[in-house]
Amino acid sequence: MSAGSDGVVVVALDAMGGDRAPAEPVRGALLAAGPALRVLLVGDEPALLGELDGRQGGASAVEVVHAPAVIGADEEGARAVKAKPDASLVVAHRLAAEGRAQAVVSAGHTGAMLAAGALVLRRVPGVLRPAIAVVLPSRGGPVVLIDGGANPDVRPEHLPQFALMGTLLARDVLGVAAPRVGLLSIGEEAGKGSELVQVAHAALLGSPGFVGNVEGRDIPRGAVDVVVTDGFTGNVALKLYEGAAAAIFAEVREALAASVRGRLAGALARPALRGLRRRIDPEEYGGAYLLGVRGLSVIAHGNSSGRGIANAVRLAARGVREGLVGQLEAGLAGRGAPVG
Amino acid sequence: MSAGSDGVVVVALDAMGGDRAPAEPVRGALLAAGPALRVLLVGDEPALLGELDGRQGGASAVEVVHAPAVIGADEEGARAVKAKPDASLVVAHRLAAEGRAQAVVSAGHTGAMLAAGALVLRRVPGVLRPAIAVVLPSRGGPVVLIDGGANPDVRPEHLPQFALMGTLLARDVLGVAAPRVGLLSIGEEAGKGSELVQVAHAALLGSPGFVGNVEGRDIPRGAVDVVVTDGFTGNVALKLYEGAAAAIFAEVREALAASVRGRLAGALARPALRGLRRRIDPEEYGGAYLLGVRGLSVIAHGNSSGRGIANAVRLAARGVREGLVGQLEAGLAGRGAPVG
Repeated sequence: MSAGSDGVVVVALDAMGGDRAPAEPVRGALLAAGPALRVLLVGDEPALLGELDGRQGGASAVEVVHAPAVIGADEEGARAVKAKPDASLVVAHRLAAEGRAQAVVSAGHTGAMLAAGALVLRRVPGVLRPAIAVVLPSRGGPVVLIDGGANPDVRPEHLPQFALMGTLLARDVLGVAAPRVGLLSIGEEAGKGSELVQVAHAALLGSPGFVGNVEGRDIPRGAVDVVVTDGFTGNVALKLYEGAAAAIFAEVREALAASVRGRLAGALARPALRGLRRRIDPEEYGGAYLLGVRGLSVIAHGNSSGRGIANAVRLAARGVREGLVGQLEAGLAGRGAPVG
Repeated sequence: MSAGSDGVVVVALDAMGGDRAPAEPVRGALLAAGPALRVLLVGDEPALLGELDGRQGGASAVEVVHAPAVIGADEEGARAVKAKPDASLVVAHRLAAEGRAQAVVSAGHTGAMLAAGALVLRRVPGVLRPAIAVVLPSRGGPVVLIDGGANPDVRPEHLPQFALMGTLLARDVLGVAAPRVGLLSIGEEAGKGSELVQVAHAALLGSPGFVGNVEGRDIPRGAVDVVVTDGFTGNVALKLYEGAAAAIFAEVREALAASVRGRLAGALARPALRGLRRRIDPEEYGGAYLLGVRGLSVIAHGNSSGRGIANAVRLAARGVREGLVGQLEAGLAGRGAPVG
C-alpha cells in the first residue's frame, strides 16, 4: 500500500458517491490530480466522460474506470455491497484490493464503505474492529477523534486498538512527535464515566501516550492529540462540533449584518474571518480514514464540494506516502517503529 | 413547591459551593434578590457577613443561614452528604425539604447535588432516575438537553421519563407550546445508533412530541426543543458545545487582533458581537435543573461568576413560579395538564 516505484500514488475515487455526484467528484479529481497523484474516476463511463468533456485541469492524470451500478443512500450497506459487485463504490475498493490503486475514496454511503472495507479490502490481521479516524481542528492544532462512527457499540478491549491506530495517524500523517492520547469521559478522574469507560480506562493504562480521561471541552481546546471513544459518542461529538461551528459563524454574520456599523466591521474583517472559517471547515481535511483494513480508505463528507473531494483524495495520498497501513500492521504485530 | 402565598419565592443558595465561593455566590445573591425573591445564603456565617459587609444591592432580601462545614471537590458525593449533615450544600437542601425555601441552588459538587437531591429532597414517586436538564442556545431558540450527566449508564426505559421531564421544562419554563422531542443518535432512521438507542427509540414511540432521532448537528441548529440522551453522551455534548463556542470566539478575537484592519473591524463589531457572545454564554441560564426530585434544584457552573449565580437563582425561581415539580408529579401520575 505504499506509493508505486515511480513515486506516483494512484487513488480510486468513487465518482458516483455523495449528494453532489458525479459533478463534484469529477471537479475534485481534476483539482487533486497531478504528476505524482493519479485518480481513477470510477462510475458510469458516459456520464463521467460527459462531465470531463471540456474541463481544464489535471485531465491527463485522471482515468475513467467504468462501473455501471450505484449504491443508493437508502440501501443497507453490507447487503448492497454483496448484491452489487459492479457498483462504483465496490469497484473502487476492488481496484485498491487488486493493487491497481493504493487508496480508495468515496463521499457515498458510510455503511457501504465500512462493509466494502471489511469484505473487499479485509481487516488487518489482529484488528478487532476497524474504526473511523477524523481529524478535527482545535486551538492546539489538529486532533484525531477515533471512532467517529464505525462502531456504535464497543467493548472496552477495542479502545486500546483505537488508541494505537489514532496515534499512528497523528504521528505519521500529522507529524506529532509523541502524540498524547485521552479517553473521552465526563470527568478527569479514572473513576468517572460510564461503566464501559471505567473498564476502558484500566485497559488503556500503559498505552503509549495515554494521559487519562478528557472531557468534551478538551476537544476544541486541543488538550490532547488523539481522543479515543466509542463510535456512538464520537459521531455525536463530531457532528455537534461541525454544527456548532457552522451555527456560530452564521450568528456572527447575522449579528454584523444587523447594523451599518456591523456591516462595515464585517467588510473589514472578511479576510481575517475567511482564513479562520477555512481553518475550521470540515472540508479542510476532506474526509476521515477508515483504519484497520488492508488498504487506505477515506470516507468523504456526503455533501462534499469539489474542494472537499480534492482534499479527501490528497488525505488518502498522504496516508499512502506515509505507509499508514503498513505501520498499523507492524504496530499490531509488535514490530516496526515503536510508538510514543 | 409553588411560590409562597405572598408571591415571594425563597431560594436557598449554597454560598460555599463553586470555585469562586463565597465571593461570587454572595454577589449573585445580591444581584438576584428583590421584593419577590428572597435568598437564604447558606454557609459559614462570619465569612458571609464579612462578604456582605458594605455591599450594596438587595441586602434586605438576603438572609444568612449558618452552616459550618463544606463539601470539597475531591470528596465522594454520597459519602460526603451522609457524613456532613452540617455542610452548606446539605443544609441548603434541608431548608428546601422542610419548606423554609422552595428551591436550592449550588455551584458546588455535582455528585453531592445528585446525592442530596436523592437523600434529602427524595425522588418524585414513580421517577426511575432523576436527570439533569440543561438549557442550551441554538439557532432555533433554547434547546433542553436531558440527561446532562446524572446517569452515565441508563436503561432504555429511563428515556421516556427524561423526555417527559424535558417536555414539561420546555413547555412550562421556556414557554414552548408543543415541544418537539428528539432522541440523540447517529443517523435519523429508527434503525441507526447504539443498541440502547434502538430500543429507546421504540420505547419513545407515542411519547408526546416525539419526532424520532436527531444528530449532534441538530442541537446547535435547534431542530427540536428537547434532546433526550443518556448522561454520558449528554455531558460530553454539553461540554463540547460550550468548549466549541469559547474556542471559536477566542479564534475570532485573535484573527481580528492580528492586523490593523482586523483591529478596526473588531472595535466596530464589538457591540454586535458582545450581544451574541452573551446569548450563547453558558452563564445565560446560569445552571441546570435536577429534575425528578421533590424540590426545585438547580446546579450552577462550578466556575460561576456573580452573574451566573444570579441567573441560576432566577432560573430556580422561575421553576418554582411555574410549578415545575408539581407538573412533573402530576405528569408521572397521569394527572394534570396533558403534555404535547
